[in-house]
Amino acid sequence: MALKGLPDGRAEITGYARRPEMAERALRLGAVDRVDRSLASAVEMAELIILAVPTMAMKEILTGISPYLNAGSVVTDVASTKLQVMEWAEQSLPSNVSFVGGHPMAGKEFSGIEVADASLFRGCTYCVVPGRDATDNAIHAVVEMAEKLGAHPIFLAAGEHDYFVAGVSHLPMILASALVAATTGDSRWSRMAALAATGYLGTSRLASQHPRMERDICLTNGDNIVAWIDRFSRELQQFRHLITEGDLGLEQAFEKTRQARNGWIEQYGKKA
Amino acid sequence: MALKGLPDGRAEITGYARRPEMAERALRLGAVDRVDRSLASAVEMAELIILAVPTMAMKEILTGISPYLNAGSVVTDVASTKLQVMEWAEQSLPSNVSFVGGHPMAGKEFSGIEVADASLFRGCTYCVVPGRDATDNAIHAVVEMAEKLGAHPIFLAAGEHDYFVAGVSHLPMILASALVAATTGDSRWSRMAALAATGYLGTSRLASQHPRMERDICLTNGDNIVAWIDRFSRELQQFRHLITEGDLGLEQAFEKTRQARNGWIEQYGKKA
Repeated sequence: MALKGLPDGRAEITGYARRPEMAERALRLGAVDRVDRSLASAVEMAELIILAVPTMAMKEILTGISPYLNAGSVVTDVASTKLQVMEWAEQSLPSNVSFVGGHPMAGKEFSGIEVADASLFRGCTYCVVPGRDATDNAIHAVVEMAEKLGAHPIFLAAGEHDYFVAGVSHLPMILASALVAATTGDSRWSRMAALAATGYLGTSRLASQHPRMERDICLTNGDNIVAWIDRFSRELQQFRHLITEGDLGLEQAFEKTRQARNGWIEQYGKKA
Repeated sequence: MALKGLPDGRAEITGYARRPEMAERALRLGAVDRVDRSLASAVEMAELIILAVPTMAMKEILTGISPYLNAGSVVTDVASTKLQVMEWAEQSLPSNVSFVGGHPMAGKEFSGIEVADASLFRGCTYCVVPGRDATDNAIHAVVEMAEKLGAHPIFLAAGEHDYFVAGVSHLPMILASALVAATTGDSRWSRMAALAATGYLGTSRLASQHPRMERDICLTNGDNIVAWIDRFSRELQQFRHLITEGDLGLEQAFEKTRQARNGWIEQYGKKA
């Protein structure tokens, strides 16, 4: 939708989805110019292929499209983790095709074409992780696409990317789910629920994400996520300690995290 | 501001703030009809007194206003915890004055008169915790005020209130602060910060609250908060276990918390 909305949006976009009714909906929304019932024929004339599926489905798709790709074509993705995806791409794709991993740092907690939004990528950071054999032209094509969407591309190594997103995306996702599990598991939740307000809404937000996507994130970035959980737990225990001591150091600890968050908001111009 | 904006807003509102310049700003904003430089004279003609200060400041205020209150007047508050406040009120106030604890479940992460918003209480749950000797008239006055603000008053015992909010407000606050401490403490945070997006923004939101208010919440509701931290930690360790096992049960766990959160959103009509 964002690509079709560009002033110079003359690119022809073919859509493919496992479920034909989803492809039809994309067509009716004007997100694609045509749909194809076959993955093979959907990719065989394409210059740029964008894969958007839960991470664990990526391997099969990469293997599936591999025989049909044009020499010189570019494959990119939008998966939440990169190390595993880059490995699969290297194993599966022919050497005359470039893989350039992508990950736009934008999203909604609710998934599906119903919540599609052409302005989603505007202003977001767009991680670009070039494959080992990607050509300069291929890298440029993905960077240019990100810029046309209004996003800010940055280059990262796959391992660095996965470590970073484990801290700023995947840890928050686990915290949200564990918070919901702890609170809604209370025997008095039905009464307590009336008191949950915007604070709970925001902190639990990521728990509404797609469970398959969340599972795949954990299956492909487990080591980093576990390291961040352990680090988080140490900070949590530190707060617990200050609370049980009734310590006046609490105010300093809260002041420090407030300044750190507000500094981030200021620097990156996040809407509060 | 919300009370002054009511169609039948004929009540005269006197403002008092420790810092005179804050009282003057409230006056300029039209939130109050007049300001008083003395706490004593601000309350001595009042029928209904609303205390809005960090919890630990409440004791001194209650003691300070006590000699000047009219017989039959009603004192309420908007503090985040109730058990300690109710105890102080009972110790400090004369028997011919009613204390009716209040806690509107609404707020912003940023504090101060700069972010005042007359529509803040619309649609929120308003906890009402009557003091032991509060008259029916006094309770009615607070309930009526909440309803006029567009809020939904519910009655709770102080202990029940404190346990509930520890789970849905104070635990999320600690999680937000520990998340910010863990992530911004990373040696590569300056680079990682560019990848933090709406997920991080929402999960960390409560870390921008006022440190003194946060400290006072911990000092007056510590036992409940610690119990919720421990419960949360068990859920977190359960997710950690599923991740290290690479367990397919992960998807079920995420599905369960997604349904629980979405059910809450649906029932309470929260904006997503």
